[in-house]
Amino acid sequence: MKPQLVAGTRDLAPIDVFRRNYIFDTIRRVYAAYGFAPLETPAMERLDTLTGKYGDEGDTLLYKILNSGDFLKDANAEQLAERQSAKILPQIAEKGLRYDLTVPFARFVAMNRHLLPFPFKRYQIQAVWRAERNQKGRYREFFQCDADVVGSPSLLYEAELMQMFDQVFQKLGLKVIIRINNRKLLDALAQALNRKDDFLRIVTIVDKLDKIGWDGVERELKGLGLTEEEYAFLHKCLRTHSIDEAKQYLKNPRAEEGFRELQQVYDLLQGYQFSNHFEVDFTLARGLNYYTGCIFEVVVDKTAAGQEKLVMGSIASGGRYDNLTAIFDLPDVSGVGISFGADRIYDLLLELKKFPDETFNQTQLLVLSLDDESLRTAFALATRLRAAGIRTDIYPQAAKFKKQIEYANRREVPFVLIIGETERLSGNYTLKNMRTGEQFSQSIEQTIAQLT
Amino acid sequence: MKPQLVAGTRDLAPIDVFRRNYIFDTIRRVYAAYGFAPLETPAMERLDTLTGKYGDEGDTLLYKILNSGDFLKDANAEQLAERQSAKILPQIAEKGLRYDLTVPFARFVAMNRHLLPFPFKRYQIQAVWRAERNQKGRYREFFQCDADVVGSPSLLYEAELMQMFDQVFQKLGLKVIIRINNRKLLDALAQALNRKDDFLRIVTIVDKLDKIGWDGVERELKGLGLTEEEYAFLHKCLRTHSIDEAKQYLKNPRAEEGFRELQQVYDLLQGYQFSNHFEVDFTLARGLNYYTGCIFEVVVDKTAAGQEKLVMGSIASGGRYDNLTAIFDLPDVSGVGISFGADRIYDLLLELKKFPDETFNQTQLLVLSLDDESLRTAFALATRLRAAGIRTDIYPQAAKFKKQIEYANRREVPFVLIIGETERLSGNYTLKNMRTGEQFSQSIEQTIAQLT
Repeated sequence: MKPQLVAGTRDLAPIDVFRRNYIFDTIRRVYAAYGFAPLETPAMERLDTLTGKYGDEGDTLLYKILNSGDFLKDANAEQLAERQSAKILPQIAEKGLRYDLTVPFARFVAMNRHLLPFPFKRYQIQAVWRAERNQKGRYREFFQCDADVVGSPSLLYEAELMQMFDQVFQKLGLKVIIRINNRKLLDALAQALNRKDDFLRIVTIVDKLDKIGWDGVERELKGLGLTEEEYAFLHKCLRTHSIDEAKQYLKNPRAEEGFRELQQVYDLLQGYQFSNHFEVDFTLARGLNYYTGCIFEVVVDKTAAGQEKLVMGSIASGGRYDNLTAIFDLPDVSGVGISFGADRIYDLLLELKKFPDETFNQTQLLVLSLDDESLRTAFALATRLRAAGIRTDIYPQAAKFKKQIEYANRREVPFVLIIGETERLSGNYTLKNMRTGEQFSQSIEQTIAQLT
Repeated sequence: MKPQLVAGTRDLAPIDVFRRNYIFDTIRRVYAAYGFAPLETPAMERLDTLTGKYGDEGDTLLYKILNSGDFLKDANAEQLAERQSAKILPQIAEKGLRYDLTVPFARFVAMNRHLLPFPFKRYQIQAVWRAERNQKGRYREFFQCDADVVGSPSLLYEAELMQMFDQVFQKLGLKVIIRINNRKLLDALAQALNRKDDFLRIVTIVDKLDKIGWDGVERELKGLGLTEEEYAFLHKCLRTHSIDEAKQYLKNPRAEEGFRELQQVYDLLQGYQFSNHFEVDFTLARGLNYYTGCIFEVVVDKTAAGQEKLVMGSIASGGRYDNLTAIFDLPDVSGVGISFGADRIYDLLLELKKFPDETFNQTQLLVLSLDDESLRTAFALATRLRAAGIRTDIYPQAAKFKKQIEYANRREVPFVLIIGETERLSGNYTLKNMRTGEQFSQSIEQTIAQLT
């Protein structure tokens, strides 16, 4: 039998695990610094929890788990005969795999409403699964890294989240642009244009600005029937990065609310020294149907040194939503959260060679034995080295020296300790630095002192 | 809609995540100290990889994932009409959830046979899923913590694994008994008794020794047809914990091999000071169909102080197997590995109150504001506290003081920092130790110095 992975999934070899954990640990430390606590939910959720939460397309992308045992026993005979997959589905599958971390979080909050202290700040770093069409670079199992706070409308949290974006990317050594907008301003613009009905289509076009530029946006919006004046008004409102300027153009109660919220976030952040560029971007739209207040997005800063050639695209995002838990009969829970795109960040750090020394957390020393008696000595010495905190491995036989050194090279260990008869009798063992080629004939105490 | 978990699964609230990670981190550090490197494989594997690897019962316990889209399209009409679940299954489901970490590891090794340096040492700490019958204390999603080395028959690894058992439990503060046996000695005994055919049943009975005692074992074995002499011989061979003594009774080439292997492990461990009790236990059988050489098991030491009332049962185990990857056309790969039962260890540590201070990694300080202006100061001060490495949270409004203190209590934060007009004007803020009730009126620098 040929061993194969499920298409769209991947194994993480040791180096991949180290690198990914470096990203997760960085994010986790910032989350913890801001008072977020970890939550983990099961991979499987009830299909009635998941279905209908991600739109029609989302429903088709859910992985469904077949009921155990004689799953066809009670299935409808007629529908079976007609092969009506959609109708048979709920009769043979009650469970599905987690599609995101937000719905399980809402389920958790609703279930534990009487136990949790509100505002409740949680972070969650777990895999999610989506039955996406198989294509390069798109995975069916991937990790999300979310932080959300629920139970308070305070804009203090928006300000905190902007700092968290800033600090995560500063620690990862990636220069980014952090953008903020407010969903209410998009509503206000729809109102001002008197275009509430097809406003979603307008926003979808504006959202493509990064890709098609203002020329493309103008062409597409006019194709949608916007007049010269309407487009000019929209362009004027959205192009500026100044709250004060935009305020002069867009004047209705909804707009006032949106501007006030943005201004409040800015005021809180006034004394904070950003490491990255932070700006209002009125063209930012993100998940219009979902968010209700401030919305955020982080993209790579292509003006930063060394980052000119990076591919654009959002690497983190978030926003405020009302009624997260309303579907579970817990209304009026306002929440705000962010999420990091771990896979994209991984690729960027790899491309920029920003991962710290790749051997971190790996085996530091390999003990080689030139004869069987030395292998016993090797085992005893390894015990001491490990007790001293040195991550140590032993080549398990007194094989040919060439073979052992080849293995050391393939394992990429930085040091080997060589033990033969001479070494055993003298008590001085040869420590070799595999990078520089340097050798030291010394006691085990000296080796421990050198490596710790 | 009532929010519900899938039966047999659980959410891990922050305190559960902290505790579980404490166990995982302890195990992970020991694994790394011995040169094992982390591997992660996808939750989903192809059903042809999983099926047939865990026996007939195992196959029924596999979670199967329904194919995406119109899954019934090509299903056999006749079998559908007859509701033949078992025959329809492979036509509508190609994927399943990981049932253990061993088969995915074997798949990984076979797939990457030309890339991996052998011996290859990997550890893997991931969830597995089993459609067990729903009962208290039995989970359908749980974690396994495996370490295996493949590609060498060296008994040095057996000796290392015994040290690893010892060190993990020493670090966790749990006294255990580490038992070792060799599968070849059970073969040899079957040979000596001339009972190869029903030997599996004999071993199954002996394996119950901890539960039913020697009296029970004698009764059941005689029920199976063992004569007085046969039972006496078996009892004599198995009851001793001395290799030298057992050697005198059990003499055939297979037995010699088994004794030699055990002796070699003992010789390597001669200078090693165990923190726990380490013994040969010839009654140990563990997964007879799977292991081929040394086998191990760790149980709670009920003679240790404070542990007298603990429930017995294996909390870690392992052994050597040949031909792990043979099913994937990669023969002659000998391996040996161990696994920790994280859930049982969790329950034991909780019962013995052996988890370190429960606030580890949680929020250290909550900032409270007595008026709106103070909330702005709170935000600025929190930024400084966080930059200094103090995990800080802010109550997000200038709510009634009582309400804020209640929240601090529910969050179990060790310290609060109180900011009102007086504090703002003086630059001295009140730091309150929530456990002792002590209060300090001091500068933010003093608070930082006190908490770091």
